Amino acid sequence: MKLQDLHTLYIKELRDTYHAEKQITKALPKMIDAAESQQLRSALSKHLDETQNHITRLERVFQMHNEDPKTETCKGMEGIIDEGKDVLSHDENREVRDAGLIAAAQKVEHYEIATYGSLRSWAEQMGHTQAAQLLQQTLDEEKNADAKLTQIAQTLNVEAVRRAG
Amino acid sequence: MKLQDLHTLYIKELRDTYHAEKQITKALPKMIDAAESQQLRSALSKHLDETQNHITRLERVFQMHNEDPKTETCKGMEGIIDEGKDVLSHDENREVRDAGLIAAAQKVEHYEIATYGSLRSWAEQMGHTQAAQLLQQTLDEEKNADAKLTQIAQTLNVEAVRRAG
Repeated sequence: MKLQDLHTLYIKELRDTYHAEKQITKALPKMIDAAESQQLRSALSKHLDETQNHITRLERVFQMHNEDPKTETCKGMEGIIDEGKDVLSHDENREVRDAGLIAAAQKVEHYEIATYGSLRSWAEQMGHTQAAQLLQQTLDEEKNADAKLTQIAQTLNVEAVRRAG
Repeated sequence: MKLQDLHTLYIKELRDTYHAEKQITKALPKMIDAAESQQLRSALSKHLDETQNHITRLERVFQMHNEDPKTETCKGMEGIIDEGKDVLSHDENREVRDAGLIAAAQKVEHYEIATYGSLRSWAEQMGHTQAAQLLQQTLDEEKNADAKLTQIAQTLNVEAVRRAG
């Protein structure tokens, strides 16, 4: 694929993000199963539902540009999810694993905050107002999910320190 | 490595971040060479200097905890940098490549914002005030670098659209 104009870069990034979101829907159920904290399980479950919506929104954006929804391997998200899998394999202390799961999930959220930020800006700059609005909705949900995880981390980690102390 | 307490998770994450920062110092010079925009080159060069400081700060944090500075492969950053390399290989339109470089650099920044956010919180929760302050300094610089890139993107992308139009 030649990147001769911003539109091409934008479509390429949409495909990368479509792949990233699909990977997240596979990873989240395993993180939900592993989470010890009810609050964390509930936040991740809510985000799994949101992620399904993000996929649907991306499909609508592809449609607006008369493009079939295609995926392109998102190496960044693959690496981040691999790190998350490593955390899952540790069950020595379930509160500590929860702290690790939150950190892994926040890397996922921040990757997406960066990606949707670029996509939304490019859509705006090319005058794709409706697509920009859909991308902004997802961006807002990613930011909220990240803030919720920060909040949960405050409780969890303290417990982990105490148990280990 | 068994994750039996938060301290162990924290040291593991410090090693992962130490590896990530070292990868960034190798990747940034190639991005600086490729950037067409003087403003982008200058922002990335400034961030390369900051990244050297981030490495020094991490070494000080390791020292505070009587740990030798070691790296642990950071798969997330490896994936993100691989994506950046893919952008570098495209020289069909140098303004579009700049837009792609900014998006790739913002993924790097956001990965680090997530990581330093977790590290700083854990350091605080374990009462490592001085380490938390050093980690916060780096976190602030990552956020500023991200904001600067967002600002540069506003100019660049418009040019890219125009040239393609």
